[in-house]
Amino acid sequence: MSEPRQGLFITLEGGDGVGKSTQAALLEEWLRERGRTVVRTREPGGTAAGVEIREIVLHHRGDIAPRAEALLYAADRAHHIATVVRPALGRGEVVVQDRYIDSSVAYQGAGRVLDADQVRDLSLWAAEGLLPDLTILLDLDETAARARLDTARTRYDRLEAERSDFHARVRAAYLALAAAEPERFLVVDAALPVAEIAADIRRRLEDRV
Amino acid sequence: MSEPRQGLFITLEGGDGVGKSTQAALLEEWLRERGRTVVRTREPGGTAAGVEIREIVLHHRGDIAPRAEALLYAADRAHHIATVVRPALGRGEVVVQDRYIDSSVAYQGAGRVLDADQVRDLSLWAAEGLLPDLTILLDLDETAARARLDTARTRYDRLEAERSDFHARVRAAYLALAAAEPERFLVVDAALPVAEIAADIRRRLEDRV
Repeated sequence: MSEPRQGLFITLEGGDGVGKSTQAALLEEWLRERGRTVVRTREPGGTAAGVEIREIVLHHRGDIAPRAEALLYAADRAHHIATVVRPALGRGEVVVQDRYIDSSVAYQGAGRVLDADQVRDLSLWAAEGLLPDLTILLDLDETAARARLDTARTRYDRLEAERSDFHARVRAAYLALAAAEPERFLVVDAALPVAEIAADIRRRLEDRV
Repeated sequence: MSEPRQGLFITLEGGDGVGKSTQAALLEEWLRERGRTVVRTREPGGTAAGVEIREIVLHHRGDIAPRAEALLYAADRAHHIATVVRPALGRGEVVVQDRYIDSSVAYQGAGRVLDADQVRDLSLWAAEGLLPDLTILLDLDETAARARLDTARTRYDRLEAERSDFHARVRAAYLALAAAEPERFLVVDAALPVAEIAADIRRRLEDRV
């Protein structure tokens, strides 16, 4: 009888469009080749109840009180972790998840409506303290992000300048989280070729899978 | 020019069927006669978003993780307090509300799934610390509650015995909350005649309205 395998919880973080889905798919493929059972999931909306919760947030966007929105996302998280993630980890599977606590903290912190520490405490209460074994941060520096934007549009308007400023704050918040927990985080340059990033991730996981 | 009136936040607490709605209606009438503007409201479900949140809880009852359910109720509370209660108090109106934080604490504590202190902290965070000026607890002792049940049915089955035990725990939790904050609570015997209870409540409010 072989030893029971240990569950592994891996999250992917970073702004929209940095390649989280691509890397999650490559990672899943590699893990399956090595005989692991993989659960690919995401937050928000990784469960049926979560989809309904997300619809409330989207439906009432802008009208809903900031704390109510944070609590709704935390409710989605609590249900998702309790009913999807923990059971999979208990069966010794690998959970590969798009966005988790660090997203909540980085985006709330950047939005400056709620205190980032409170958002983190709320998330940890929702998840009964579950932190990932590994968090892959796909980091894109401002120059690269600006270049991607410039490809799409020739001139910056005020809204885009604001967006750019917001993204810079999200990025700074992510990097601060990574610096505070270097053993949990793997920070990779999202501007590198896809295959190179995938190789970096595999190297980091080699001895744990 | 008359002095601006001060907002007043009054909540009604107690088990189902103890007469909260009746007393709320009588209180509203009396307050209106004294020239006050009254907002009658309730939790859960006092807003459009709150109704949707409540539907998720009811729809997924039993399947939803306990922390997710607590967070959903807290989200409903956060939105309701921020968009209905605080604005009314800010206009100097009287808010008469069916159930609030004490319900969450008493019922969660009695259900013994989540820690009552954590539920209270969560509720207070949701409501940005807002506590009522007066909480009317309509208290029904076990003998009276049992007599009401006996009228409806001649024999106790196991489920009813369990229910009776649950209600005894809810009642004990409510009384403990009232004992801890005597200046906020008015405890009235719900077995007394309706008019007598209403008079008790008016006496307590006389000098504040």
